[in-house]
Amino acid sequence: MRLEEAKRIIKETLPEKRYIHTLGVVETAIQLARQYGAQEDQAALAAMLHDYAKYRNVSEMQRVAVELGLDELLNYDEELLHAPVGAELVKRELGVEDADIYQAIANHTTGAPNMPLLDQIIFVADAIEPNRHYPGVEQLRQIAQEDLTQAVIATLVQTISFLCKKQTVIFPLTIETYNAFVPEKRKGTVL
Amino acid sequence: MRLEEAKRIIKETLPEKRYIHTLGVVETAIQLARQYGAQEDQAALAAMLHDYAKYRNVSEMQRVAVELGLDELLNYDEELLHAPVGAELVKRELGVEDADIYQAIANHTTGAPNMPLLDQIIFVADAIEPNRHYPGVEQLRQIAQEDLTQAVIATLVQTISFLCKKQTVIFPLTIETYNAFVPEKRKGTVL
Repeated sequence: MRLEEAKRIIKETLPEKRYIHTLGVVETAIQLARQYGAQEDQAALAAMLHDYAKYRNVSEMQRVAVELGLDELLNYDEELLHAPVGAELVKRELGVEDADIYQAIANHTTGAPNMPLLDQIIFVADAIEPNRHYPGVEQLRQIAQEDLTQAVIATLVQTISFLCKKQTVIFPLTIETYNAFVPEKRKGTVL
Repeated sequence: MRLEEAKRIIKETLPEKRYIHTLGVVETAIQLARQYGAQEDQAALAAMLHDYAKYRNVSEMQRVAVELGLDELLNYDEELLHAPVGAELVKRELGVEDADIYQAIANHTTGAPNMPLLDQIIFVADAIEPNRHYPGVEQLRQIAQEDLTQAVIATLVQTISFLCKKQTVIFPLTIETYNAFVPEKRKGTVL
């Protein structure tokens, strides 16, 4: 699928604010792909399509999640569904067969322990694109210019801290991802 | 076992600073037991013995952990071992057969999703006893006076935030505990 065609579909599919966010993710993903040596066209298309299923109704997303064997997701926030379901619907409905793009879309919300470069770029770009505004985003942008792995960790820390502050459930895969990305030697301790 | 006998053993077993910490945990655990309706003598004895294995050598603790089927712990920080291993050694070496005390000692570092009242008291008392000094401890003490469940959550958040700040691994059971204690309706979301 050409990027312009995907752009047209996304513009029709998403509310304007989310469409503008998406264009920001595309811009940032291209910049990160250039900087860290990923394929720019692949990063751009994954970014353009990453929120494809964001506004589907929940029961539809739950049905697709069950079809994919992701029943466990139904115990967590509905917000988590749109990433793996979106990857699947991009394939089914738009005919995008690129397995790397599938995976980058599927992992963009929770992360995954073995995220390859493309997934890391989409994960970070989603958090730091120019239309994002939250405390700490400028520091994340700075880190992303210096070290992508550190930016993945910092994005996860931002997410975990945000959830802790709101006293909301943390999806275990996000912690598995964090644990996989922090340096091995820094094994953690508690009180 | 009488509290005075446990105190004598702990004084001989632990370095002075850790012994003083332990007396602080005993004091706080008694106060919380009184406030929240747990057995004071049981809370006092669990508190007195909670760090019994803290200074055992790591290979011994690892051996006991494997005997207990806790092999997974060996992949995480050595600091985590002393809680479940301590519970077992308190039973084996000191002959303390109280299953509630066993569990409260075993859970005092990581927490556990279904911690009963006694476990919660030891978990929180360990974090807020008068000799603890770290940013946020005063607020934790305040919360513990008002709502024990909230104090458990706040202690977990304190721990998770501390580990995130240091970019160190988080033991999954700590997140499972956090997820079990936060209110069901506040299911989390991420970016």
